[in-house]
Amino acid sequence: MKIIVYSTSLEDVHVKKIEDAATKAGAKVCFVKSEDEVPEDFKDVEIVYGNAFNIASTYKSLRWLCSPNAGIDKFLIPGAFANKECKLSNSSGSYGVSIAEHIIAQALMMMRKITLCYAESLNHKWGPQRHQDSIKDCRITCLGTGDIGRTFASRAKGFLPKNIVGVSRSGKCDDKNFDKMYKIEDLDKVLPETDLLVMSLPGTPETENILTRERINLMPRGSYIVNVGRGSAIDEDALADALDSGHLAGAALDVFKVEPLPQDSRLWNTQNLLITPHVAGNLTLLHTINRNVEMFCEDLINYANNRPLKYEVDRNKGY
Amino acid sequence: MKIIVYSTSLEDVHVKKIEDAATKAGAKVCFVKSEDEVPEDFKDVEIVYGNAFNIASTYKSLRWLCSPNAGIDKFLIPGAFANKECKLSNSSGSYGVSIAEHIIAQALMMMRKITLCYAESLNHKWGPQRHQDSIKDCRITCLGTGDIGRTFASRAKGFLPKNIVGVSRSGKCDDKNFDKMYKIEDLDKVLPETDLLVMSLPGTPETENILTRERINLMPRGSYIVNVGRGSAIDEDALADALDSGHLAGAALDVFKVEPLPQDSRLWNTQNLLITPHVAGNLTLLHTINRNVEMFCEDLINYANNRPLKYEVDRNKGY
Repeated sequence: MKIIVYSTSLEDVHVKKIEDAATKAGAKVCFVKSEDEVPEDFKDVEIVYGNAFNIASTYKSLRWLCSPNAGIDKFLIPGAFANKECKLSNSSGSYGVSIAEHIIAQALMMMRKITLCYAESLNHKWGPQRHQDSIKDCRITCLGTGDIGRTFASRAKGFLPKNIVGVSRSGKCDDKNFDKMYKIEDLDKVLPETDLLVMSLPGTPETENILTRERINLMPRGSYIVNVGRGSAIDEDALADALDSGHLAGAALDVFKVEPLPQDSRLWNTQNLLITPHVAGNLTLLHTINRNVEMFCEDLINYANNRPLKYEVDRNKGY
Repeated sequence: MKIIVYSTSLEDVHVKKIEDAATKAGAKVCFVKSEDEVPEDFKDVEIVYGNAFNIASTYKSLRWLCSPNAGIDKFLIPGAFANKECKLSNSSGSYGVSIAEHIIAQALMMMRKITLCYAESLNHKWGPQRHQDSIKDCRITCLGTGDIGRTFASRAKGFLPKNIVGVSRSGKCDDKNFDKMYKIEDLDKVLPETDLLVMSLPGTPETENILTRERINLMPRGSYIVNVGRGSAIDEDALADALDSGHLAGAALDVFKVEPLPQDSRLWNTQNLLITPHVAGNLTLLHTINRNVEMFCEDLINYANNRPLKYEVDRNKGY
């Protein structure tokens, strides 16, 4: 059994952990920092850990790919795997800490107008006092109540918002930080009562353009949106219109329909839009990498013992 | 009994509340938006609500001034009051929500390098992935455990930091969000174990330059500082050196020795320094104004009934 680990983020402690698990699993492991580095004797590799799109689409020997990402929509595209039976697992559950902090940071930057202060300070300008909003005054809706939505809710709770409600496919989530849960079908009922909408949905056909122009307009004047899930979930043009008209007080996007955001996108010039380059769940926080590696090692032992993978993706659901 | 209310922030609901309290207190009240607007028949005014420095320094009739600020150091300067016996109260206790959100926003902006992403986005640039830090990995020290420090700690707790310790004059605070309390004399013991230092001290002779060059150097390499108290508390030149040398990973200042920050200050060009123009506790959040007005009305009834003022400042302590 041969494993390729393709990553530029691992530290010594992670390499050691994976080597130990490989030994237990009776597997041979090879670490590469580029997909072109696969050595000759690993051409029959069975397991890959990493976002190895080239290996996945060319190596028929592959039987399991574990992505260190939470969102694996790019692995669901036809032709992504040379071996159609290849198992796919993800690392959903490791990004909550990082992305929750990002959401809180972006929401507060917008509400407190720190973006404007900061832009002025770059020009050595002492800006004026401006109207600020507070999380404490918000009715928060989490569209998506997976690890990210739940971890965010646990942080947001401490700010004593008016309420936090969750919206998910099942309409069920036993996390006590949600005051109420709704099904996706009830989204139109929830939006008019939402001051801060936090979107952490996976990229699936079901979530594509879920935030339509009509739905953006259902939100109260002066409300805020943060999207850390997938850019495909929002009608970007409608969002830009709602920001430029002042209907929305602000939006923060870490994800976009096309990434990097094209130079000719109108979003660069949209007022009160906070753009970050898909960094909310980047792989620099030790929490994230530690947890990712833990999850892979756990499933490696499952795989070696012919047990089901704990973190296998449901290709029908898309997450 | 005549009252002047000097404010540009009050809404109808606040005016009504003050008028009702004045009626109960048997007082006549006049609302002005400029200190020059005092009408002839209020030249013998007894009570002022507002930061009315001119009225305080010229009207001998004044017997009580209530400042809507928490920090009242400017009212302690010799000559601030024409009547030296004038009572002084402040509004410490109303700024916690606003300033705590500001601290969290600034800490996360620095740790997650969103400042850099944002500066790039202003130039339509999709920035690189950068190393991020997390509140979860921080040992947090609150230098100052009044309303601001405590409200911050209650929000920070949800991020599951390694610990939160408080440092105060008495070394005592029964807030359960502090894992441990220290006296100011023990500051040098705490700083080497501090990853995020949150300063919310009043401006007094005791707190002036409390964060010396030596103390900044006691902090671990890669640590962060947020100051929302008074600019006088930090050796600004030493702070700039520690940032430019990379000893500190970041600092966020909302307050400065001289405000507005002078054009020739080296702080404008200091790397990893986040400057905001004294807006952490501005008077736009309804929470803050509501609470301010409530506190004044409470003390107005106390005053009318010859009871001690609940929010009177201890001029010896300076807060």
